[in-house]
Amino acid sequence: MVKGLSAFFSPKGVAVIGASSHANKLSYGILENLTQYQFEGKVYPINLKAKEILGLRCYLDVRDVPEPVDLAVIVLPARMTLEALKACAERGIKAVIIISGGFREIGESGVALEEACMKVAKENDMRIIGPNCVGTMDLYSGLDTTFIKGMPEVGPIGFVSQSGAVCGGVVDLIIDKQIGFTHFASLGNEMDVSEADIIEYFGADPHVKVIAAYIESIQDGRHFMQVVRQVSEKKPIVLLKAGRTDAGAKAVSSHTGSLAGSYAAYQAAFEQTGVIEVDNIKELFNVSWALGCLELPGGKRAAIITNAGGPAALASDSLAANGFELADISQDVQQMLREKLNPSAQVSNPIDMLGGAEAEEYDACLQNLIHDENVDILLPILVPQSLVDPVAVSQTFVKNAELTCKPLLACLMGERSIGEARALLHQNHVPMYQFPEDAGAVLGAMQRYHDYLKRSKQKMVNLGDIGGKYVADQLRDYKHLESLGEAETRPILAAYGITVIGGGFAKDADEAALKAEEIGLPVALKIVSENILHKSDAGGIKLNLASAEEVKCAYKTMFDGIQQSMPEARLEGVLVEKMAPEGQEVIIGMRRDPTFGPLMMFGMGGIYVELIKDVSFKVAPLEYSDIVSMIESTYAGRLLKGFRGSKPADMQAVVDVIGRLSQLALDHPGISEIEINPLLVLDQGQGAVALDSRVILSA
Amino acid sequence: MVKGLSAFFSPKGVAVIGASSHANKLSYGILENLTQYQFEGKVYPINLKAKEILGLRCYLDVRDVPEPVDLAVIVLPARMTLEALKACAERGIKAVIIISGGFREIGESGVALEEACMKVAKENDMRIIGPNCVGTMDLYSGLDTTFIKGMPEVGPIGFVSQSGAVCGGVVDLIIDKQIGFTHFASLGNEMDVSEADIIEYFGADPHVKVIAAYIESIQDGRHFMQVVRQVSEKKPIVLLKAGRTDAGAKAVSSHTGSLAGSYAAYQAAFEQTGVIEVDNIKELFNVSWALGCLELPGGKRAAIITNAGGPAALASDSLAANGFELADISQDVQQMLREKLNPSAQVSNPIDMLGGAEAEEYDACLQNLIHDENVDILLPILVPQSLVDPVAVSQTFVKNAELTCKPLLACLMGERSIGEARALLHQNHVPMYQFPEDAGAVLGAMQRYHDYLKRSKQKMVNLGDIGGKYVADQLRDYKHLESLGEAETRPILAAYGITVIGGGFAKDADEAALKAEEIGLPVALKIVSENILHKSDAGGIKLNLASAEEVKCAYKTMFDGIQQSMPEARLEGVLVEKMAPEGQEVIIGMRRDPTFGPLMMFGMGGIYVELIKDVSFKVAPLEYSDIVSMIESTYAGRLLKGFRGSKPADMQAVVDVIGRLSQLALDHPGISEIEINPLLVLDQGQGAVALDSRVILSA
Repeated sequence: MVKGLSAFFSPKGVAVIGASSHANKLSYGILENLTQYQFEGKVYPINLKAKEILGLRCYLDVRDVPEPVDLAVIVLPARMTLEALKACAERGIKAVIIISGGFREIGESGVALEEACMKVAKENDMRIIGPNCVGTMDLYSGLDTTFIKGMPEVGPIGFVSQSGAVCGGVVDLIIDKQIGFTHFASLGNEMDVSEADIIEYFGADPHVKVIAAYIESIQDGRHFMQVVRQVSEKKPIVLLKAGRTDAGAKAVSSHTGSLAGSYAAYQAAFEQTGVIEVDNIKELFNVSWALGCLELPGGKRAAIITNAGGPAALASDSLAANGFELADISQDVQQMLREKLNPSAQVSNPIDMLGGAEAEEYDACLQNLIHDENVDILLPILVPQSLVDPVAVSQTFVKNAELTCKPLLACLMGERSIGEARALLHQNHVPMYQFPEDAGAVLGAMQRYHDYLKRSKQKMVNLGDIGGKYVADQLRDYKHLESLGEAETRPILAAYGITVIGGGFAKDADEAALKAEEIGLPVALKIVSENILHKSDAGGIKLNLASAEEVKCAYKTMFDGIQQSMPEARLEGVLVEKMAPEGQEVIIGMRRDPTFGPLMMFGMGGIYVELIKDVSFKVAPLEYSDIVSMIESTYAGRLLKGFRGSKPADMQAVVDVIGRLSQLALDHPGISEIEINPLLVLDQGQGAVALDSRVILSA
Repeated sequence: MVKGLSAFFSPKGVAVIGASSHANKLSYGILENLTQYQFEGKVYPINLKAKEILGLRCYLDVRDVPEPVDLAVIVLPARMTLEALKACAERGIKAVIIISGGFREIGESGVALEEACMKVAKENDMRIIGPNCVGTMDLYSGLDTTFIKGMPEVGPIGFVSQSGAVCGGVVDLIIDKQIGFTHFASLGNEMDVSEADIIEYFGADPHVKVIAAYIESIQDGRHFMQVVRQVSEKKPIVLLKAGRTDAGAKAVSSHTGSLAGSYAAYQAAFEQTGVIEVDNIKELFNVSWALGCLELPGGKRAAIITNAGGPAALASDSLAANGFELADISQDVQQMLREKLNPSAQVSNPIDMLGGAEAEEYDACLQNLIHDENVDILLPILVPQSLVDPVAVSQTFVKNAELTCKPLLACLMGERSIGEARALLHQNHVPMYQFPEDAGAVLGAMQRYHDYLKRSKQKMVNLGDIGGKYVADQLRDYKHLESLGEAETRPILAAYGITVIGGGFAKDADEAALKAEEIGLPVALKIVSENILHKSDAGGIKLNLASAEEVKCAYKTMFDGIQQSMPEARLEGVLVEKMAPEGQEVIIGMRRDPTFGPLMMFGMGGIYVELIKDVSFKVAPLEYSDIVSMIESTYAGRLLKGFRGSKPADMQAVVDVIGRLSQLALDHPGISEIEINPLLVLDQGQGAVALDSRVILSA
């Protein structure tokens, strides 16, 4: 359990170091926020000149502040921060928020200043949030250490953000919509307290029902995964990652000074740990709010109840695009509705009550549908009509939502007429959207979390000590090299139990023939020469040699031919390889990500990996189920399973190879990249063989 | 030019038939709307009892109404509509809006009623909007025949909607955002006036700068394409199609009673005619508003100016995802900004002025960037800060937008604090978004329109009379059949100049040998027998026969073998076919869409067409450039061009085959589907050969 964070949210007393008496200063705004809500702790402005600000007695030095004080907020120029921090340490304060900017984000001098601060913190068992942040809010204790205007409603969402501006913007966006929060935590440069720490803290706080996170980059990817994997078993984590494209990543690193791993690695890490990734800020709050208000859907059959056909069609599109379907309303219910609704109403799904429908009609539909076993999800839609009262209609949503565990999501397609209805719905935890298209994406995200919770849980792949020592010795021998070719990579793979195509080096025709009989005929010969890059063009490949005699003959023909056409080439000998059987070619690889570590890759072989980008990624260590889903998410995986009557290939062998390769990567950080290209996958039960492979070593 | 529509928007006098004196009736709402804005025409309520409503003198019958009256709005129960229409005809009214529902959407009796109404309309040269609609608004004349509450601002957007509710919802959504419109037209069942008519009318109206359309289904796809193709050369058409998925299409047809063509055909038709398709209602207005306010971007280099890094990163992601890039700010400008901005500010792109930035800083950035030749697009972002005035900042956006042709799109990430600033921006036609992610999609849509306008324009493929008579004769002979196999399809393709694999039927070994020499060796033999489905399994295929002797020998072996193993099979003879050379396999097809006509298809051959759904569609008739873009939009097309050093295939031959097949489809409506699968594409300059093909005939 993460320690020392509770003072950031419910301190007994707060010192504001650098509190100004001028209303046009941010620190004055912080004092206002600390005093205007229900925060019951003490507030101590530290100011060299003023006696009193906002009716609060000022102190010259934080060391003079009386008990209780367990949180300090520093709002000084960066150069004065270190001294202030030392004063806090002397005063025994264990939690400090540094609002000030001018640290890591401005370059080297800022990095040095952060290091100096961290030294003080570590020596004094102190936790720091920031610098370059806007502080924290706790909607339960009423604490607000930010200078953001306004405080949202109390509710289920704990929000953590690496951007202070995003915190401020979000408050401005949602504050009049009655969406409720437990905390806001703006982390800035994350000198000490990280997003993972806050997620762990929120995970343990019973008020938090759902965690919303805005993330730009993660320092310690493996720790993040560890924390988040545990928390997401208990409560959903909805996350927006900025810097997903190259341009976005550049923008992030230019304003934070941090270097991020690849987005493919982030995506894989999120998927593997149950994080619900969303595409934009609007979805971040739509999805979090729905998860905070509703049970997860028990199935995929939605009933739409509407007073207008067009918006219902848009909602239907959105449901279908997210994997949901329109429920078949049971005949009994249809019969009952026929009696209650306008005779021209449509009683099959979408139930279109026509423009005149009022609260009674909505109520009749919902009352019946909450008991219809064919229906898992309720989606009432109201387009404002001049003669229909949106508040009365919304009351029927609230009433029926309380009577059922089925998720009920409302769409009120308007703005001017629906403010009061929205407030009513949100205060009663019925999530509401203004656009009929929004519900599908929200339900889709809820379903992904549902599927994650229901997945089969397994232990991580761990093959024990299979080839570690041998490979470690080899790598020590190769440490002057940047990369290893096929000949050197092959025994490394073999040491980890990966089948490589049989073969070996031979320096003359007789040795080639011997080797061929040893590994089994037929074989192929491939010239080995530093001077020949394109073996095939140079006549340096002979295939399908079926006898020792044929091998010798081919060797001679090959050498004679090359020596004539390329007299200057130094020919070392040949690789003798068993001819590969028929099979399907895939690519398996590993690239070590700076944030998350070994990133495993699986994809379609041949030209298709580049043409259609048919690849998937996961972060090692892996569960076997991760590997299976990694394979199945690609077209290559569907081909392996047997597509359109073709024979199924040995999927299990591919799973095994990826597992072994992941252990190789975990055991040997000196390996920066590995690629098996192609891995030839034989028919089911026949295994898989690495035909070609290479390694890149860490610098 | 479409006729008779101007009275729907700027009539001299309006009769409201069925006007009620009760404030809780929709028709009362219509009278209110007709009288409370600046509409200067006369308004005549038709009511059997009341003398006066809202100060307007009532008439018993529309025939009694004095001049001027050129528009009637009927708000009666469906069963009374026909009589009212006849009365309008007698009164000489040529434009009628039928608000009432209870027509086609309720089934057969409604269809009959519509037909009866249309008879009256045609006999009297009358145009009808509706039934089952909410009427029209003209923001310039002040006319409002709807019962929607409120009237939006005057502005550049002409909005046409097949759903009345979507009109009402949209008004409610945008009315407090100062987004401006020219007209609203709700068309309902489109008994007479269609979306194409209104688009044509808006196309000719100089007030309309951009057309926004909400469409559920189109009756006459070819007419729609014809109209829209012309209008979109002059002004952009932004369109949201409901019913894109099967579920959505079902929802549409259940509430309109219409049967829609496939969404693939809609998409193709929109692309080919320059329609800017959007995904949801929010985008419909974001994109329309931007197109109404801004010039099209002259390039793809955007400059972001921000007071917060996080939102700039989100905007960067959104730009990159839509094909835009961050401009390299010129060194001169960077130098100037370094002097004006906070010393810690980031002066390369995104320009991050930090949280304290005020109007002067925004102004300094924009003043410099509007003249920077490296910058095509300006994207200022403001996250509300407690000490910064959003209105003052927005004033700098307005001022600088007026000084440049470069599109300037503002992001104000908030709601509570930004209302006044938004009003200022929108009143001055600077489009503004609340989420940093929105700008990318808007710019992407603008760029698609820009690309459409700049495309190379060509004539439609027209090969003249190439094989029409022959095929017409053939099809007459086949009219009892449902489909044609390869043998019958081959001469049809050949008649249109498509190369088919050489070959023909032979009834004995000698004839087979003769045929083989005629078409050129080597050949393949394929058994022809009704009783043999799987030719290969039955030993009914012999490949690579290189001499007449070999052909005879293979024929005998084949017949002897089959007669032994399947004595009951009736063997008719063999197909003798030239052996196919090496090449790349693609699929070309045509399916006749009920809305748009011949829908041409191109895709990757083999298992990939099903595995990765690598297909593209276009509606015939086609320009050659359509065919090229159809091919190039697929992976198959990239392979044909020569991928990763493979030889380029004969792309031109594929273009030619698709062109010829499209003409075949246009010439012969009796053909419902054609498929060439595979078409073998040879190396560049070597052509393409249809290896197998089939036709399905219309019922």
